[in-house]
Amino acid sequence: MNVANPSVKKLLQHYKKISLLGKVKATLDWDLNVNMPPKGSHGRAEQSAYLEEILVQLWLDTDFLDTLASADAKTMTEEEKAIVRNSAHASKFYTKVPKALIIENAKVTSEAFIHWRQAREENNFKGFLPHLKKIIALNQKIAGHLGYQENLYDALLDIYEPALTTSFTKKAFDSLRDELMTLVGHIQKSEKYVTDSPLVEKNIVYPLEKQKELVLGCMKKMGFDMQAGRLDVSPHPFTTTLDRYDIRITNAYKVHDFRESYTAGMHETGHALYEQGIHPDYRDTPLEGGVSFGIHESLSRFWENMVGKNPAYLGYMTPIFQSTYPDVLGNVSEKEFVQLFTMVKPSFIRIEADEVTYALHIILRFEMEHDLLNGTISAEDAPEVWREKSKKYFGIAPMKDSQGILQDVHWAYGNFGYFPSYALGNLYGAQFLKKMKESVHFEEELQKGNLAPIKQWLDTHVHTYGSLYYPRELMKKATGEELNPKYFVAYLKEKYTEIYK
Amino acid sequence: MNVANPSVKKLLQHYKKISLLGKVKATLDWDLNVNMPPKGSHGRAEQSAYLEEILVQLWLDTDFLDTLASADAKTMTEEEKAIVRNSAHASKFYTKVPKALIIENAKVTSEAFIHWRQAREENNFKGFLPHLKKIIALNQKIAGHLGYQENLYDALLDIYEPALTTSFTKKAFDSLRDELMTLVGHIQKSEKYVTDSPLVEKNIVYPLEKQKELVLGCMKKMGFDMQAGRLDVSPHPFTTTLDRYDIRITNAYKVHDFRESYTAGMHETGHALYEQGIHPDYRDTPLEGGVSFGIHESLSRFWENMVGKNPAYLGYMTPIFQSTYPDVLGNVSEKEFVQLFTMVKPSFIRIEADEVTYALHIILRFEMEHDLLNGTISAEDAPEVWREKSKKYFGIAPMKDSQGILQDVHWAYGNFGYFPSYALGNLYGAQFLKKMKESVHFEEELQKGNLAPIKQWLDTHVHTYGSLYYPRELMKKATGEELNPKYFVAYLKEKYTEIYK
Repeated sequence: MNVANPSVKKLLQHYKKISLLGKVKATLDWDLNVNMPPKGSHGRAEQSAYLEEILVQLWLDTDFLDTLASADAKTMTEEEKAIVRNSAHASKFYTKVPKALIIENAKVTSEAFIHWRQAREENNFKGFLPHLKKIIALNQKIAGHLGYQENLYDALLDIYEPALTTSFTKKAFDSLRDELMTLVGHIQKSEKYVTDSPLVEKNIVYPLEKQKELVLGCMKKMGFDMQAGRLDVSPHPFTTTLDRYDIRITNAYKVHDFRESYTAGMHETGHALYEQGIHPDYRDTPLEGGVSFGIHESLSRFWENMVGKNPAYLGYMTPIFQSTYPDVLGNVSEKEFVQLFTMVKPSFIRIEADEVTYALHIILRFEMEHDLLNGTISAEDAPEVWREKSKKYFGIAPMKDSQGILQDVHWAYGNFGYFPSYALGNLYGAQFLKKMKESVHFEEELQKGNLAPIKQWLDTHVHTYGSLYYPRELMKKATGEELNPKYFVAYLKEKYTEIYK
Repeated sequence: MNVANPSVKKLLQHYKKISLLGKVKATLDWDLNVNMPPKGSHGRAEQSAYLEEILVQLWLDTDFLDTLASADAKTMTEEEKAIVRNSAHASKFYTKVPKALIIENAKVTSEAFIHWRQAREENNFKGFLPHLKKIIALNQKIAGHLGYQENLYDALLDIYEPALTTSFTKKAFDSLRDELMTLVGHIQKSEKYVTDSPLVEKNIVYPLEKQKELVLGCMKKMGFDMQAGRLDVSPHPFTTTLDRYDIRITNAYKVHDFRESYTAGMHETGHALYEQGIHPDYRDTPLEGGVSFGIHESLSRFWENMVGKNPAYLGYMTPIFQSTYPDVLGNVSEKEFVQLFTMVKPSFIRIEADEVTYALHIILRFEMEHDLLNGTISAEDAPEVWREKSKKYFGIAPMKDSQGILQDVHWAYGNFGYFPSYALGNLYGAQFLKKMKESVHFEEELQKGNLAPIKQWLDTHVHTYGSLYYPRELMKKATGEELNPKYFVAYLKEKYTEIYK
């Protein structure tokens, strides 16, 4: 990368410190999840908080902010402009939201987390209600400080998905919701509709070492650079960047079900390939890292669902599954594996949802977040609204709030605006797939277990750009048009019509 | 800990930041040794260097140094005084040595390391000579800035062993050297003198998982708190403190010899018990951490040699060794195990030395460091002096410098003054043992595998104090007198006379 602009040069110099410290913090967090002995947690929290303090100071550095404010975009290259844009976007939270509010937010959410956990355990929404109210009020204030054009919610969406608006999301989600409900209805009416399998029951054991072997095999096939990353174990799978050349993923293993570690392994490797594929020149600059949560999820879900649960790839994997667990799966057919990985079942819990119903869970949350923030529903009424929507979208409503409004940690953390990126990921991914198929013989390659051309396409059209283009520009550049939900609907229809006829 | 003095309160507040960052750095280093994928090393080096930069700024903080300078010891408690003393001692290097010299030192030693490694590989002292000369000159300058009363070398010894002097060390080492040479001579004349065993040859396999199991068993028996620490694998065993409640040790496993992981495991756990045993109030203060390298080594060597290689404890371990490796060791007797762990053999390589000859290796280095720094021998002549001393102390002289003067990394790192602490550890440890035996039925407890009273004694008389007392005071407090090498000599004579008759 050729940076000549003196202001941008100065920004890069300062940003490098921010980047290095951020990665140090990532190392602490990775270790916390993978290694830390129980009694070490208090000390680790203090260490992380102190690093955060230094980081905030770096973001608020007067010289840095002055350089940023005075940087003149006129004569800048595309990359230089993006460096300024990303620096401004990332520092916005610290510069626009008053420090007192940030501290109050940290305090309220750390208390809320404890009460949310207890409320969920005891299925007692009232225990969480006062905290939820405070968090909503805080998010309204924060949004006010961050600023927005049309809708208060825009300011929060922009944190996770730069430049995303409420109106755009609403339009996309409205049509998607109706299409998905119709598709689920069709699937449920199919003769082939099943929701259970004797292959994943309590009496069946899939040794953890074998599961890990399977995941490592997929990682290598996908092109993960094992010299520049690792696979470890943690309670919940995640991916993190400790350096441009040290991308770590974790997985969790269930002894009675081999599917989750297989799909989560591909999901996390999808995230990792994005980070490993970013242009090396962007290392420790504001162009490093995935551009948004939505694009990141699009890639992880692409590998998990569009590759990992693709009937063609499951055909390729069939003999591998069979020989990995010969006692249990030795005689299971390709057809049965496809069935096992593509069951559709409306359910209460988002994180257990299948590929078809998943987005409905997100749309429900998007609508609720929007209405809670804009005051069109009250926090008191939220559980009832949740049940009504659940009944409407899934045909079932949770009896317990612990399986409804209390199930996710996001609101307790104060992360309003985060959920939509999950569903956007599905939409982006399907649009990538559509475009990719113009040059890659997708199903044929999957049948052969040849994933290299797929990674190659993503490297060239998505990964390499890192945070150079905002999602909207990236979609145009990679697929020739803006995000259009029709591709995801078409993808699902085609896939599940084929499976369920 | 009750701190009322306002200056000390201020010092503690600032020091906490230094402590937290130091532990973050320790986490990065631990991860580097245990987990890091090869391509991550460059990024990790940059992260560590940046943390070091912030740490130096914290040490040189004007307000901190002013508080330190103006702190009035008159009305202070013992703990408050020690906090001031330790803060001054730790900041001395940064305040007294000019920054340009610190930077030059870092540059020279990082180059020297590369040339040392190559010189050792190629057995070519001349390749290292110009670097050694520069390092000696730099250490002379650094010692000048740090200041000393009698001997230039005092200033460097004080870095690793606070308040230790050359004259004191020389006196102790002179008598020790002669005693050890005599003892080795006696052992070599014994009918029972052996230097090899068919139990540790290339055709014999000790599965690594079994070795780890054995080490974990010893750690638990020694009282290591597994909720506040971990055991992992790294190329060289080490112990590190990531927090008061997160002390990690590592071990290395050789497939043909089970002894090293057993003794190294106890050695590292000895370091860890020290850190785990320090008074909790000292956490993140200048009183946390072991007081010196020598005291730390005394505890690790105590567990490794005085417990782990004690015939009584080996008696207790015999059935455990037998059942851990039934195929190889099933019929090996207690006597044979004692022989296996107490072989004495003059050799060239320090890190492979036995308990009896080890200190001779250190004394040789101590004498050479002293003479090189004071200019009584030149760097050019050093290899020849090394051979002469080796011939004199061990009866053998290395043909190759790679097995002589080039074997250790310490001088390439610029760490003059570090070696003596290794031998001091032996001396301190024997004196602790002597005193401990007044109240603990040492051999009887070892025979029963009951290590709790031993840990208890060390907790009460050594561990809990952390860095409150300098080694000299600590010895008086714990054993009633200053360090006296006679206890170590008596310990060796008694043990090895019994074994070799």
